[in-house]
Amino acid sequence: MDIEKEIAERGENINLLLESYLPEEVGYQKRIFEAMNYSMLAGGKRLRPMLMRESYHLFGGSSQAIMPFMAAIEMIHTYSLVHDDLPAMDNDEFRRGKKTTHAVYGEAMGILAGDGLLNFAYETAATAFEMEPENPAIGKALLVLTKKAGVYGMVGGQVVDVEGEKNLDDVEMTRERLDFIYRLKTGALIESSMMIGAILAGASEEDVDKMEQIAAKVGLAFQIQDDILDVIGNQEELGKPIGSDEKNNKVTYVTFEGLEKAKEDVARLSQEAVQLLESIDADTEFLKELILYLIHRTK
Amino acid sequence: MDIEKEIAERGENINLLLESYLPEEVGYQKRIFEAMNYSMLAGGKRLRPMLMRESYHLFGGSSQAIMPFMAAIEMIHTYSLVHDDLPAMDNDEFRRGKKTTHAVYGEAMGILAGDGLLNFAYETAATAFEMEPENPAIGKALLVLTKKAGVYGMVGGQVVDVEGEKNLDDVEMTRERLDFIYRLKTGALIESSMMIGAILAGASEEDVDKMEQIAAKVGLAFQIQDDILDVIGNQEELGKPIGSDEKNNKVTYVTFEGLEKAKEDVARLSQEAVQLLESIDADTEFLKELILYLIHRTK
Repeated sequence: MDIEKEIAERGENINLLLESYLPEEVGYQKRIFEAMNYSMLAGGKRLRPMLMRESYHLFGGSSQAIMPFMAAIEMIHTYSLVHDDLPAMDNDEFRRGKKTTHAVYGEAMGILAGDGLLNFAYETAATAFEMEPENPAIGKALLVLTKKAGVYGMVGGQVVDVEGEKNLDDVEMTRERLDFIYRLKTGALIESSMMIGAILAGASEEDVDKMEQIAAKVGLAFQIQDDILDVIGNQEELGKPIGSDEKNNKVTYVTFEGLEKAKEDVARLSQEAVQLLESIDADTEFLKELILYLIHRTK
Repeated sequence: MDIEKEIAERGENINLLLESYLPEEVGYQKRIFEAMNYSMLAGGKRLRPMLMRESYHLFGGSSQAIMPFMAAIEMIHTYSLVHDDLPAMDNDEFRRGKKTTHAVYGEAMGILAGDGLLNFAYETAATAFEMEPENPAIGKALLVLTKKAGVYGMVGGQVVDVEGEKNLDDVEMTRERLDFIYRLKTGALIESSMMIGAILAGASEEDVDKMEQIAAKVGLAFQIQDDILDVIGNQEELGKPIGSDEKNNKVTYVTFEGLEKAKEDVARLSQEAVQLLESIDADTEFLKELILYLIHRTK
């Protein structure tokens, strides 16, 4: 399997799906629609909806109800980037070589576009009730989506990350604190993606739990690989200056564990994730390749 | 009926309900919990959950599933205030005589506490699925909640309001534009409250539509009364300087229509709302008194 080609093709497919869910740029509130669509179409791997769809197919899901959830998880991911980039947060003018949303539309619109996207994510996910009003799996999926995105999930991770960066509470970064940030800020939405795919396909509770465990390992390995790439990556491939974490005095997994141990841990986590995945009685081939590709990527 | 006393008592009751839904202030992300709870407990009339509960009882609703939705609507209202007050938005340091959330916890935490509350609103509403997994009314209520809060509802109104205030697009305020802002920024959550009460109680589609129409009139009259009070109100009762709209060059309903016409319109709208309400075959007494009190309040 040419995994890169396969991922690119599926990503294009997901882009079409996302576009079909974006708001039309008309009405008095036209400007927020433009800002939302700008941020949604600024690129990205579409990793989360891709993992969601694959997890769904893994358990034999075949209805349309997965589609609004795929759009919703990418909207939530995107809103979090828009707010992370704001002047009061990371104050980034560029992301993936493009101007950030607030840099184009102003700070007030950056805040509102993020709010708009977060709310629109749930508005979109909720349309699944119109498709299948009697399907109790949709309520379950929504519970997971909201929980993993919120203060006990991604937002919780953002808070602790920002506190550390701004040293708001005079906190010292510990290994436990870093684990917490990685698990919530990066891991939670990946867990959500894989769990929702399984839930909507009608997987057993045991299998949904298994998907959560697999996703947690994938999320952590993905984030550690990010730290490794910041030290050893090829600046051109990566699209950002290497060594930027060190320059920003950012404490990472590599700071605590060193480069070799970090690499070992990525290898171990990905092996564990694949083993768990293979214990599921289904065709796990593409999902396995996707996970290994994501974890071992060089950019 | 001593309506003020009655409202105060029911408000206290709602405060207890809200408190039971707020997050415990523990964990690495303790600070965001503090900021969220600070903003939720900074006072307010609890108008939206009160209207929701009354609309629910009106149609004979009697289960617990209304409770998470009552908490959710107040969380959405509160997040919108927290973000409205941010430096990049209205830049307010005080609200109802108390420091605003960002003034106490910093700008980054103001943004995240708002995000956290918006997400927690849906997380909370979604717990109704755990109570009644097979009840399709919950999915319907969630559709209304998300839609009325978002870019076609409250957030849409905020955007157009902010654009006008900051004159971002060199737009001229027209009567139609002002109507749009009032309908979305103020009206949408009131509509949502009364519709969700009816939906969860199992009201007919016709009655849910009627509640939406009543709420739209209440929301508009409420907002026009706000503009009137800014001109003629008693500064002490109101808790903010009168004439502040004029000083801020804020174009209001009174600017377009004059004081007398504005007063007439409030009277007409409230009469229409009450007439519609009385066409419902149920005990509408308290809801009627509540609506009249809210519209004709002097503070």
